[in-house]
Amino acid sequence: MIFLLSDFGTDNHYAAAMKAVIASRAAHAPQFDITHNIAPGAIDDAAYELWAIWEYLPESAIVVAVVDPGVGTSRRAVAVRIGGKTVLCPDNGLLTDVLASHQPTAAISLPAPNRTAQMGATFDGRDLFAPSAAALATGAALESLGESIEPSGLVRLDLATPSVVGDTLIAHIRRIDSFGNIITNCQAPLFSDWLQGAHGVGLAIGKGGSLVYTPVRRAYGEAGFGARLVLINSAGLLEIAAPGSSAYAYFDRPKPWTVVRLKRGTR
Amino acid sequence: MIFLLSDFGTDNHYAAAMKAVIASRAAHAPQFDITHNIAPGAIDDAAYELWAIWEYLPESAIVVAVVDPGVGTSRRAVAVRIGGKTVLCPDNGLLTDVLASHQPTAAISLPAPNRTAQMGATFDGRDLFAPSAAALATGAALESLGESIEPSGLVRLDLATPSVVGDTLIAHIRRIDSFGNIITNCQAPLFSDWLQGAHGVGLAIGKGGSLVYTPVRRAYGEAGFGARLVLINSAGLLEIAAPGSSAYAYFDRPKPWTVVRLKRGTR
Amino acid sequence: MIFLLSDFGTDNHYAAAMKAVIASRAAHAPQFDITHNIAPGAIDDAAYELWAIWEYLPESAIVVAVVDPGVGTSRRAVAVRIGGKTVLCPDNGLLTDVLASHQPTAAISLPAPNRTAQMGATFDGRDLFAPSAAALATGAALESLGESIEPSGLVRLDLATPSVVGDTLIAHIRRIDSFGNIITNCQAPLFSDWLQGAHGVGLAIGKGGSLVYTPVRRAYGEAGFGARLVLINSAGLLEIAAPGSSAYAYFDRPKPWTVVRLKRGTR
Repeated sequence: MIFLLSDFGTDNHYAAAMKAVIASRAAHAPQFDITHNIAPGAIDDAAYELWAIWEYLPESAIVVAVVDPGVGTSRRAVAVRIGGKTVLCPDNGLLTDVLASHQPTAAISLPAPNRTAQMGATFDGRDLFAPSAAALATGAALESLGESIEPSGLVRLDLATPSVVGDTLIAHIRRIDSFGNIITNCQAPLFSDWLQGAHGVGLAIGKGGSLVYTPVRRAYGEAGFGARLVLINSAGLLEIAAPGSSAYAYFDRPKPWTVVRLKRGTR
Repeated sequence: MIFLLSDFGTDNHYAAAMKAVIASRAAHAPQFDITHNIAPGAIDDAAYELWAIWEYLPESAIVVAVVDPGVGTSRRAVAVRIGGKTVLCPDNGLLTDVLASHQPTAAISLPAPNRTAQMGATFDGRDLFAPSAAALATGAALESLGESIEPSGLVRLDLATPSVVGDTLIAHIRRIDSFGNIITNCQAPLFSDWLQGAHGVGLAIGKGGSLVYTPVRRAYGEAGFGARLVLINSAGLLEIAAPGSSAYAYFDRPKPWTVVRLKRGTR
Repeated sequence: MIFLLSDFGTDNHYAAAMKAVIASRAAHAPQFDITHNIAPGAIDDAAYELWAIWEYLPESAIVVAVVDPGVGTSRRAVAVRIGGKTVLCPDNGLLTDVLASHQPTAAISLPAPNRTAQMGATFDGRDLFAPSAAALATGAALESLGESIEPSGLVRLDLATPSVVGDTLIAHIRRIDSFGNIITNCQAPLFSDWLQGAHGVGLAIGKGGSLVYTPVRRAYGEAGFGARLVLINSAGLLEIAAPGSSAYAYFDRPKPWTVVRLKRGTR
């Protein structure tokens, strides 16, 4: 089974071209889209989405992940085995979050595809990653795809991490979802240890903001319509939500990696 | 065969997570998206789309429909059998339109999933509905999923219905589609009985609007470019269109459930 | 294998209705979306996307391509065999680009579907093209679908073509992609013959614009962040890009078919 992730958008044939190439060579491999609407070049967003779905992917899933501003340059293209799953992607940090919690068992550097002068060097999703995925899906050994490389040498983004400073929890915005929920990089255990059973927090987004009291809940429906709340989301991360409305709009559309400050139980 | 409908959007991994869970447990079940772009929490829009595709779904289709603002609260999660088809969804009115014309033969209340403290109670699409769909797809009996409930007790939205008052047909906007067509809740038989063979109508949207003459046609291409027309659409509903342009924009972006008034043959 | 292309959008059940009809009749035929986000009625855009993916489609692919403003009128619905592939579409120019480089071997005029008064004549994607695709996918002969017609009589759009006038290359904008890349209608051989090995061009978009020096590169990553470049893209066409940014925004959102003028090596 093959899962595809990219920043190609869905207004054009780009994602479909990858699927067509795979279907031509591995007719019976079911193909699923993770998303193709990653913002152009947003490797960190793609790394997040790949991490968030990771444990739910089938045992021997093949993932084709192409957010690849460096296509056609000397950046490496790789195939990485992690557990029974294999990811084919540019070596540009796209695996950062997955690698933070999973140990790869093998990695291969994929040779550049044969490129004709009439095709440009702009679409390795179609010309390299899709054929490689099809090869794996039809039984090729990982090692047959290219040269073994040291998994520890894979590129990792240097991402901000949450911390507790005095009585303040400092997190960062990791992702905004389609509901306008603000997803932070703070995982559940850190939050609950710090919270010490309090039922609310004072919350500020951005450096200068003043603290806004926000209750801690388990489910979106436990707040009144449009009211803000803080909860642990489906990926196990601290999230700020305004069910029936948009926390993102309420907090004036903050950018990813903006600082989020929390104080315990402040009303 | 499994069909998925949600308000999760397509910019993230949420819909894909449902598909990955299903693929992990029912590898050979083909999966199709109805849409994941229902506006957040718009249960009535989801109820419309489910109704509109209903008769075209394969005989024994399994539908996973998740527009679920009450996830994690005491709202019921259900599996409902209607003809040979089965819908898994929150019991929040999502089945309103389908139930208005089809009699369910069985309904089950699904138990809440086992939720870890580190995952939140926010994603029953992945944690409850997808595994239940996979169970059905691999042969589990509907009754094995939970406790039988009385289908007549399923939540139904109290939606406006069209009516004829004197010589005026009163309908309501049910849905705007991607072409800017304004779809009303008036079904073909009511409209044609009322129309009595007239070839045009006076049309007003909203309470104060004045009547605009609009021809009645069979096909979009029977109007001049950008001209307004009224027709019976592919779901058998009265629709206001401006082919080559957008009726929705022309009528100043009216909201769902806005009143639509029609008079016969007024020029 | 069936590939679908339309202007139906993905916010509604329209594309899914085609897939549901196909799945009901050809349960085992894998279905893939090319895109459903062609701008409403933009036949030329659909013709481009179909051409751009054409050679990557599996050998015996069936394509359902529905951008069909004339649905329900006297426009023909056709099935066209080109190599081993078959396209089902309205005969409105949607095949223009594919036919410019491929010779069809057979074409059939599809009879209008039986339409009930309660369904309108607005959705041949669901009522005609999808059932015809399912019939082909389950073994029906092309000829069984309708009456043979002369392929040379298929509608072709009269599209602008690039030319060299003196030392100026005149091209036209064919498509804007999701990265904001401006794709022209100038193919690689014409461009490279004209370029004579120069490493940059003077470039103007629109009739009055002044020439902007733009380097010629092989890959997006060979420019600085946000810098403009010209390259041959993955479809073999001359493309103007601003990697990390949007050439489309930089050049003030030019419309398709706007003239693009180039001079060799001007700095």
